[in-house]
Amino acid sequence: MTQALRIGVAGLGTVGAGTLALLQAHGELIAERCGRPVLVSAVSARDRRKDRGLDLSAVRWFEDALALAADPEVDVVLELIGGSDGVAKELVETALAGGKHVITANKALIAHHGTALARQAEAAGVALACEAAVAGGIPVIKALREGLAANAISRIYGILNGTCNYVLSTMRDSGREFGEVLAEAQKLGYAEADPGFDVDGVDAAHKLAILTALAFGCEVNFEGVHVEGIREVSALDIAYAEELGYRIKLLGLARLIDGGVEQRVHPCMVRRDVPIANVEGVFNAVVAEGDFVDSILLEGRGAGAGPTASAVVADLIDIARGIRLPTFALPAARLKALPSLQMERHTGCYYVRLMVLDKPGVIADVAATLRDEEISMEAMIQRGRAPGEAVPVVLTTHETEEARMARALARIVALEAVLEPPRMIRIEAL
Amino acid sequence: MTQALRIGVAGLGTVGAGTLALLQAHGELIAERCGRPVLVSAVSARDRRKDRGLDLSAVRWFEDALALAADPEVDVVLELIGGSDGVAKELVETALAGGKHVITANKALIAHHGTALARQAEAAGVALACEAAVAGGIPVIKALREGLAANAISRIYGILNGTCNYVLSTMRDSGREFGEVLAEAQKLGYAEADPGFDVDGVDAAHKLAILTALAFGCEVNFEGVHVEGIREVSALDIAYAEELGYRIKLLGLARLIDGGVEQRVHPCMVRRDVPIANVEGVFNAVVAEGDFVDSILLEGRGAGAGPTASAVVADLIDIARGIRLPTFALPAARLKALPSLQMERHTGCYYVRLMVLDKPGVIADVAATLRDEEISMEAMIQRGRAPGEAVPVVLTTHETEEARMARALARIVALEAVLEPPRMIRIEAL
Repeated sequence: MTQALRIGVAGLGTVGAGTLALLQAHGELIAERCGRPVLVSAVSARDRRKDRGLDLSAVRWFEDALALAADPEVDVVLELIGGSDGVAKELVETALAGGKHVITANKALIAHHGTALARQAEAAGVALACEAAVAGGIPVIKALREGLAANAISRIYGILNGTCNYVLSTMRDSGREFGEVLAEAQKLGYAEADPGFDVDGVDAAHKLAILTALAFGCEVNFEGVHVEGIREVSALDIAYAEELGYRIKLLGLARLIDGGVEQRVHPCMVRRDVPIANVEGVFNAVVAEGDFVDSILLEGRGAGAGPTASAVVADLIDIARGIRLPTFALPAARLKALPSLQMERHTGCYYVRLMVLDKPGVIADVAATLRDEEISMEAMIQRGRAPGEAVPVVLTTHETEEARMARALARIVALEAVLEPPRMIRIEAL
Repeated sequence: MTQALRIGVAGLGTVGAGTLALLQAHGELIAERCGRPVLVSAVSARDRRKDRGLDLSAVRWFEDALALAADPEVDVVLELIGGSDGVAKELVETALAGGKHVITANKALIAHHGTALARQAEAAGVALACEAAVAGGIPVIKALREGLAANAISRIYGILNGTCNYVLSTMRDSGREFGEVLAEAQKLGYAEADPGFDVDGVDAAHKLAILTALAFGCEVNFEGVHVEGIREVSALDIAYAEELGYRIKLLGLARLIDGGVEQRVHPCMVRRDVPIANVEGVFNAVVAEGDFVDSILLEGRGAGAGPTASAVVADLIDIARGIRLPTFALPAARLKALPSLQMERHTGCYYVRLMVLDKPGVIADVAATLRDEEISMEAMIQRGRAPGEAVPVVLTTHETEEARMARALARIVALEAVLEPPRMIRIEAL
């Protein structure tokens, strides 16, 4: 097996250029580790004249990415274009149909079409690998597919979006509000000009859907993820979280429950002394809980040219070394179609902050509403007095059902003394 | 490839019994993930009558482990006996000579004989896998060999011994001294009756030697590891570390430097806000620094029946899936024989605690000694006054060479007002 492995790279944005830079820097090291050289045979991108800091003079250039995917001198196609549909999807389908291995960093594509594409890859007898789609340089897909393969996984959760984690960490450190910190993150390049995919939780949900399929041997089900972002998290709630011994993190969590799977992405309060609470800034982290291994945490950079290229090329080295494993660890035909747990059936503890008129009887009304839904309060804080004015009231509950909490909040917001919609953040026992 | 993979398990202590329990619990899941069943064909242990909570009635029993290794109905031998030489080594050599794959959890064996055994395995065309030898259930060997294979690794370090980390964490939390906490750890089963391998750093050094070979593509060189344990760490030094913003951890660290490799295991002061400082109790953690991936941390349980069995069976699943990679990522013939950096040439920052007679001029004498060795002080603390009595003086230095520090300490201990040998702990910039 000393023949060169010939790759075609479609997409020369941050990740594509980073991958080519890595391959140029470490050609010898990679050949040594694979027992064969890896050769960039062709590339494709929209603008040929753009300066990417790379010497591409010896590499064939395809205007048309689909032609690259069909090229007979390409053994492995690297899809680094992005987007859940369109060219990226066509490219992957074309490559697989032509019997070529595919490596992709495209979380949206795999979250939406992962099961079907895995099935196509298996039918063609080739690999479809996507380590770079989840948590950048952290080898979490390999850990789930291989390193922890002896375990039944009961739960997986993580900080899957570095932008959100940076914003939340900075809000806490600085006491500033979401909008201001986001604007700064955009200036620093930690957030996109259009930050919706990140701050609304969609990017984390894509990644969670992929991890869920790997952890539980089920079909990828992005539609089954309950998604909330961090726009509603306020500096006040972060300060209360600190006071209560918690940190606020945007987590993606998935677990097996009642014969189905629960997948959710939303801001969580986690105890300050659990390992994931101390993962700060742009870092990502994933925790997997297995029945024999107990709990494993993996932490590192979840984005950026270098870390993502590291994951792309790790997949490439696997292929060059002859490793062929199903995309989601099990053959696609054996992936189960697990039902999704509806969020209203979720049970957990809750943090609620109300802005109320400071007058006698308000707390009693709130307490009565919770009692009517059989929700048990764990703690209540009403700091400061300002008779006749708005003051925050914070309470935490023992475990209850989401549907009960939703009904209680609907009744609480209707109370005359409650001046704003309540802010609710779920408390996670990790 | 639907034929059963037949294994022989040699050694039914904690790890062996745990491995059989895992295989019994997850036979179906493993068969699904491997595409073929894994069958326990034979076992070997000293005492057949001992109750291990396992039904072994259907399994062939070998009094002689070497006969098991030579048995024609065994495809993979699991060496779970332990010890760097003797039966364990003979067993592995016999199995490899017979063309059988070998999986071992034996860090001492691999640290002492890893290169030669890897060479023998390659010559026989079989796998020699040892994920369980380092950091229990954490898939760190797989991460280095595959997940981070696209990177040049510049440094690797970790908490590689759970007993030491438990003792140091508990000393800090309770303010108690080493001996007392160790005795309690022994009662709780976190430390062996003979704790030397753990608390003197030998166990961590075995693991570090294995990680070093994987990270840097060099031969395993246990003799090249500088080893110090934690017996000399006192409650007073832990308190000072806290005051200075540090935690004391027993780390194993390896890096490439000056064309050689530096490997060392000793107590370190690390800044309290670096991720590894927050790895507490019996947990292990490893950090790998690669040129593209930046820094990756893996954390989990480093010992115990379940986590170790998880790693043993992960290796088994790899083999059942047809994955064949060299033990240390590169073919044994390509592993470099790198020179070891002598500890006296190490450079870093230092913490030193002296017990001195509280009288004028002592600090001046100490400072002059450091100046003579061109060692620059960073901070000095002399808390409290007790004229004519013993008081602690703590100082930290800027970066200097170990040889200079050793000479300075030799002169300081000779000062009349210095009442005890100085305590020195290296400060690590992580």
